[in-house]
Amino acid sequence: MSIFVLVHGSWHDGSAWQAVVDHLEAKGHLAFAPTIAGHGKGVDKNVNHAQCTQSIVDYIVNKDLTDIVLLGHSFAGTIIAKVAEAISDHIQRLIFFNAFVLNDGESLRDNIPPDSLALFDSLAKESDDNTVMLSFDVWREAFINDADLELAQSSYAQLSPEPYQPFIDKLNLKQFYSLAISKSYLYCTEDTVLPQGEWGWHPRMSSRLGQFRFVQMPGSHEVMFSNPISLAEKIIEAGRD
Amino acid sequence: MSIFVLVHGSWHDGSAWQAVVDHLEAKGHLAFAPTIAGHGKGVDKNVNHAQCTQSIVDYIVNKDLTDIVLLGHSFAGTIIAKVAEAISDHIQRLIFFNAFVLNDGESLRDNIPPDSLALFDSLAKESDDNTVMLSFDVWREAFINDADLELAQSSYAQLSPEPYQPFIDKLNLKQFYSLAISKSYLYCTEDTVLPQGEWGWHPRMSSRLGQFRFVQMPGSHEVMFSNPISLAEKIIEAGRD
Amino acid sequence: MSIFVLVHGSWHDGSAWQAVVDHLEAKGHLAFAPTIAGHGKGVDKNVNHAQCTQSIVDYIVNKDLTDIVLLGHSFAGTIIAKVAEAISDHIQRLIFFNAFVLNDGESLRDNIPPDSLALFDSLAKESDDNTVMLSFDVWREAFINDADLELAQSSYAQLSPEPYQPFIDKLNLKQFYSLAISKSYLYCTEDTVLPQGEWGWHPRMSSRLGQFRFVQMPGSHEVMFSNPISLAEKIIEAGRD
Repeated sequence: MSIFVLVHGSWHDGSAWQAVVDHLEAKGHLAFAPTIAGHGKGVDKNVNHAQCTQSIVDYIVNKDLTDIVLLGHSFAGTIIAKVAEAISDHIQRLIFFNAFVLNDGESLRDNIPPDSLALFDSLAKESDDNTVMLSFDVWREAFINDADLELAQSSYAQLSPEPYQPFIDKLNLKQFYSLAISKSYLYCTEDTVLPQGEWGWHPRMSSRLGQFRFVQMPGSHEVMFSNPISLAEKIIEAGRD
Repeated sequence: MSIFVLVHGSWHDGSAWQAVVDHLEAKGHLAFAPTIAGHGKGVDKNVNHAQCTQSIVDYIVNKDLTDIVLLGHSFAGTIIAKVAEAISDHIQRLIFFNAFVLNDGESLRDNIPPDSLALFDSLAKESDDNTVMLSFDVWREAFINDADLELAQSSYAQLSPEPYQPFIDKLNLKQFYSLAISKSYLYCTEDTVLPQGEWGWHPRMSSRLGQFRFVQMPGSHEVMFSNPISLAEKIIEAGRD
Repeated sequence: MSIFVLVHGSWHDGSAWQAVVDHLEAKGHLAFAPTIAGHGKGVDKNVNHAQCTQSIVDYIVNKDLTDIVLLGHSFAGTIIAKVAEAISDHIQRLIFFNAFVLNDGESLRDNIPPDSLALFDSLAKESDDNTVMLSFDVWREAFINDADLELAQSSYAQLSPEPYQPFIDKLNLKQFYSLAISKSYLYCTEDTVLPQGEWGWHPRMSSRLGQFRFVQMPGSHEVMFSNPISLAEKIIEAGRD
């Protein structure tokens, strides 16, 4: 039996994992899906990266969860790296799931290709609260390319604007890179949120981990919606001893 | 219900799609598989790229097909880009299926690796009608690597020499790159017709499309023969709203 | 009916193929799994690359095997290339299975990334017999990432230290690159023994073969343990006419 803590990516909140949590629990595991500070509908979006991290640290500590498998999706790769620095003694393994793995001193913004960078910068500037929102078209074509239209629409309705400051904050990750925690990289092969190749998730991000267990499955960036059962199975493979 | 127009690649004619058309229609769609001018057995091979394009434009216009999903395989990626320039109002979405996506001003010949280039140039020169033909060995090993010998042979028997001029013609694609039509890239992961990596189909060709929906399946360059049912399913995924 | 000769990689001996051999034979083929000189438990590890090659040549010649499909896994890619030089008339096709394909004049050691190189060099130096052994941790995370812990442990128990001299020997492969033998490259897509990308198996190694039949399957470097039935099926696809 494993204890999974699943940390969502940008535009999402913890409810994105519901079907995955259900399947993990049906297989005899415990699974938790906290919402990062500044994320979800109707909350104050004025947060920085440290506050995002602290909210997950607090969740784990307050629930007194230990020996956890801590998974971060997409943006949350940057969160779990900092959570691991703060409370490594609570963590058995990290799973980076189509997730950013930043080099020491970088921001997430440093790791996205020029086109997306220009788009995000201008969206943040145009917003009245330094947030960025995805258009439905980008969501449907680049994020959830493996879904039908109905699922693309119902999942889009769950999204909310993403605070931009956590993308901009440069992270000191020297301690992260000295930790002895086991790591896995779980990669969905049809994910084009980062364009495949030079700017892609794998092997660009994964290779920064040093030794890691590699697990792969078909699917888009959003398989928690389009294929939650297979995702749960692969999370189990990525997280087991 | 979608209306698919499937445009074959080099050495083929429209009959290559028969099993795919049957399956698309069994799933409630309409599907058409025209033969490009200068292609097929027993026809005049003296055509240029503009004539190839025009033959597909004429087919679509004469049949008064609208709201079509227009798919081009391999060489026909260069055709559907030009067809889209001519009759964009007939087209709902383009699907590039292990297909060339040329940069503005390039020819197909500009996009094939040096070894193949030398081979094609010499084959065209040796022919008496500026065509190139594939050897069975290349067909069996590099094109239809996922078939058994019997299927490799029966499918090879359907091929005919490919006019070389359309490979050489440089294409003005400025208008194509300004069109707002939705695009998908469908990629078979065991295709080695272009060598994977630096000279490969994906992400080299796909990334030129800007935003596109990415759909992937196992198989060779010739899954219309070796796995037509899965191909039809993936065409539906690539083409749906 | 095909005659397969399966040559194991480093740290293994011929017994690694047992489940694969069983399945190939159940499908009506003949399959042999010799142990390379200096490999296996309790044998003298003082061998060079030429002696390794000769042991496989002798096995094939002594058993009078002809028209064989000769497969080499990992390190054994370097062996089957030299075996093919020695007895090409016995061989119908070569299958490189997540295997090294050396350029003429190179050693295997020339083809591994700097980190592994430093590790291997120091392990060999620390040993009393110029061998290197894998830690269980590397085996479990990087070699057999698709297995559960029990299988990772039972398969690890079958390994023995690898003689290092065959990694260091530079190979003259001019004759190999002039042979007309058909070649296949069989690639498992979750193999991270060579890091994917710049230093990876495919397309870095595969592309050196010139024309080859490409066959792919999911799995780690050690699918002979974690998925022997699918591996046997893919070996049949890679080896058939």
